[in-house]
Amino acid sequence: MEKTYALIMAGGIGSRFWPRSRKALPKQYLPLLGKETMIQAVCHRLQDFLPKEFIFIVSTRSQLPLIKAQLPWFKASHLIIEPFGKNTAPCIGLAAVHLQHIDPDAIMVALPSDHLIADTEKFTEILNAAVELVTQDPHALVTIGIEPTYPATGYGYIQRGERIDGVHGKAFTVRAFAEKPTVEVAGQFFSTGEFLWNSGIFVWRAGTILQYIDELIPDLSTGLREIRQALGSRRLAAVTEKVYKQIHSDSIDYGIMEHASNVIVLEANFGWSDVGSWEEVYKISPKDEDGNILIQDPIVKNVRNCYIEGSGRVMAVVGVEDLIVVDTPDALLICRRDQSQEVKWVVEKLKHSGLQKLL
Amino acid sequence: MEKTYALIMAGGIGSRFWPRSRKALPKQYLPLLGKETMIQAVCHRLQDFLPKEFIFIVSTRSQLPLIKAQLPWFKASHLIIEPFGKNTAPCIGLAAVHLQHIDPDAIMVALPSDHLIADTEKFTEILNAAVELVTQDPHALVTIGIEPTYPATGYGYIQRGERIDGVHGKAFTVRAFAEKPTVEVAGQFFSTGEFLWNSGIFVWRAGTILQYIDELIPDLSTGLREIRQALGSRRLAAVTEKVYKQIHSDSIDYGIMEHASNVIVLEANFGWSDVGSWEEVYKISPKDEDGNILIQDPIVKNVRNCYIEGSGRVMAVVGVEDLIVVDTPDALLICRRDQSQEVKWVVEKLKHSGLQKLL
Repeated sequence: MEKTYALIMAGGIGSRFWPRSRKALPKQYLPLLGKETMIQAVCHRLQDFLPKEFIFIVSTRSQLPLIKAQLPWFKASHLIIEPFGKNTAPCIGLAAVHLQHIDPDAIMVALPSDHLIADTEKFTEILNAAVELVTQDPHALVTIGIEPTYPATGYGYIQRGERIDGVHGKAFTVRAFAEKPTVEVAGQFFSTGEFLWNSGIFVWRAGTILQYIDELIPDLSTGLREIRQALGSRRLAAVTEKVYKQIHSDSIDYGIMEHASNVIVLEANFGWSDVGSWEEVYKISPKDEDGNILIQDPIVKNVRNCYIEGSGRVMAVVGVEDLIVVDTPDALLICRRDQSQEVKWVVEKLKHSGLQKLL
Repeated sequence: MEKTYALIMAGGIGSRFWPRSRKALPKQYLPLLGKETMIQAVCHRLQDFLPKEFIFIVSTRSQLPLIKAQLPWFKASHLIIEPFGKNTAPCIGLAAVHLQHIDPDAIMVALPSDHLIADTEKFTEILNAAVELVTQDPHALVTIGIEPTYPATGYGYIQRGERIDGVHGKAFTVRAFAEKPTVEVAGQFFSTGEFLWNSGIFVWRAGTILQYIDELIPDLSTGLREIRQALGSRRLAAVTEKVYKQIHSDSIDYGIMEHASNVIVLEANFGWSDVGSWEEVYKISPKDEDGNILIQDPIVKNVRNCYIEGSGRVMAVVGVEDLIVVDTPDALLICRRDQSQEVKWVVEKLKHSGLQKLL
């Protein structure tokens, strides 16, 4: 029987969590939702699905020390190194080449390193259903779609088609993929009941996704072939870097999923969030009776519905509502909760102000 | 002719400007309203009224380095040292003893070190009128009352009586002194047109105020007599400290002004404020087109009507209104402008949390 491997995509830098996230300490290595860091939680959540020896991580070499520190059991040989990020298509293609080299029949579950899934049991069930699907149909590309709970504008959507019977879970053909919508369009999506949030979790055989890449993304296909020939040799890093410089940045959704036949979406409602902003962290996290999340004991009075994270310095906050306050030793953010997407603007501003060392 | 001396009372600690003001750096030594510190501005403002050789400062010994640093021309011999603060009656009594020792006919202008007066010309005129009054009437106690511009609850009031003719300026007898009123009472005071803000600026002969102290504050009188006998001797500091330990804390208003006959109030409208809170600093200071006061270049977006003072660290502020934000290397304050009086609460809280080093 085929073996299943989890592939955690951990290359992101998460600038939306500045000043806590930095180039040297991306979002997935922060404990944004409790004691575990995001990547620790992802691994933890996989424990009922597969043994941790079957977990691989794709990231840059510079993140290996963080990974080793946070996941002491993780073997460096299970780190698939990207020289730099080129979006999800190259990341998944590269991983598929590595996994296929280890196990020609490998089934891979590709998933982001920085998302929240509240209900691990349902999550495990859905992954098992997905694996069953690709076991029955070796050419299937399975993606997980989340039943939306509100008309989000911050997520991409998948429009489901016909129901596919005879599998565990609610499986559908896919009618269309849609980018992050406007408020108006999000409302329409939500009211039809046909649109699911695109979770970025995919299940397929390594061999199958590589066939699709051969067919649909020729330059990546060529590059991956070069990399495959270098596997196990000392040239691997150099070849991978050369290939990464040549190929285009491309998401697996646009590059493959939108064009492939045989795409199946499994509908899930396991309490998912991409944890894309401080506001999202605020919404998800447990609050005190004043609606506050207070980290590192700020002194507060007349404060409501705020996320306040200190850095050990004394911080006194009086008379405010609906704020995000994040202090670090060298930088401070104060932001109204409903404008937490502007943190990206702040990071851009720093980039253009000669303050790169704070990124 | 009698000589006039300015007596700047600089002993306060101004905890309402935490985290900028500290025990070791009180309000009067901060540049809260521009480039000059408060005490520099007070001295500057006196330059048309008297030569700076006639300026004396009452403070604690620990503040001498700050005074020397900020007022390089100031002679240490002009510092009248209080061992610790006991409110204005002992402060003024002690200064009067010192000044009378130097010049038995000394006229003294006692004034706080940390107030704003916008119109120096009018200020000089009023002081000249006050000196003229005490020259004509050696027993007069002159106080400066400010024509109120709104029904303030943060100031004490002086109810004026009959107009006194024959002097420059608008002089009145005093009917009553009133403490800081409630909102309701402040409204009544304001609408009568009879109530003036108590500026804490006094003009009288040193000998006259000492006579009143002899009459009205016996324990202070006894103590000051001991100090007078120690003047010029090495025992002065020890005697002053002994006396200060024995006497009561008392304000000149309650101790003398409310009970003395011959009190005259001179009405002034020279743009006065006691600069008692961050909110007051915000109100007084020039703002940019968004109503902001931004110090040390915070990065801001969608920010209005805020006072934001950085400490050199990067600070990004997004989407907020009506806030006071004051960052320092070891402490941060975020406070809604209309609650800036709560800074005193913060300071008390720190005091009781074992965080005295931050006071």
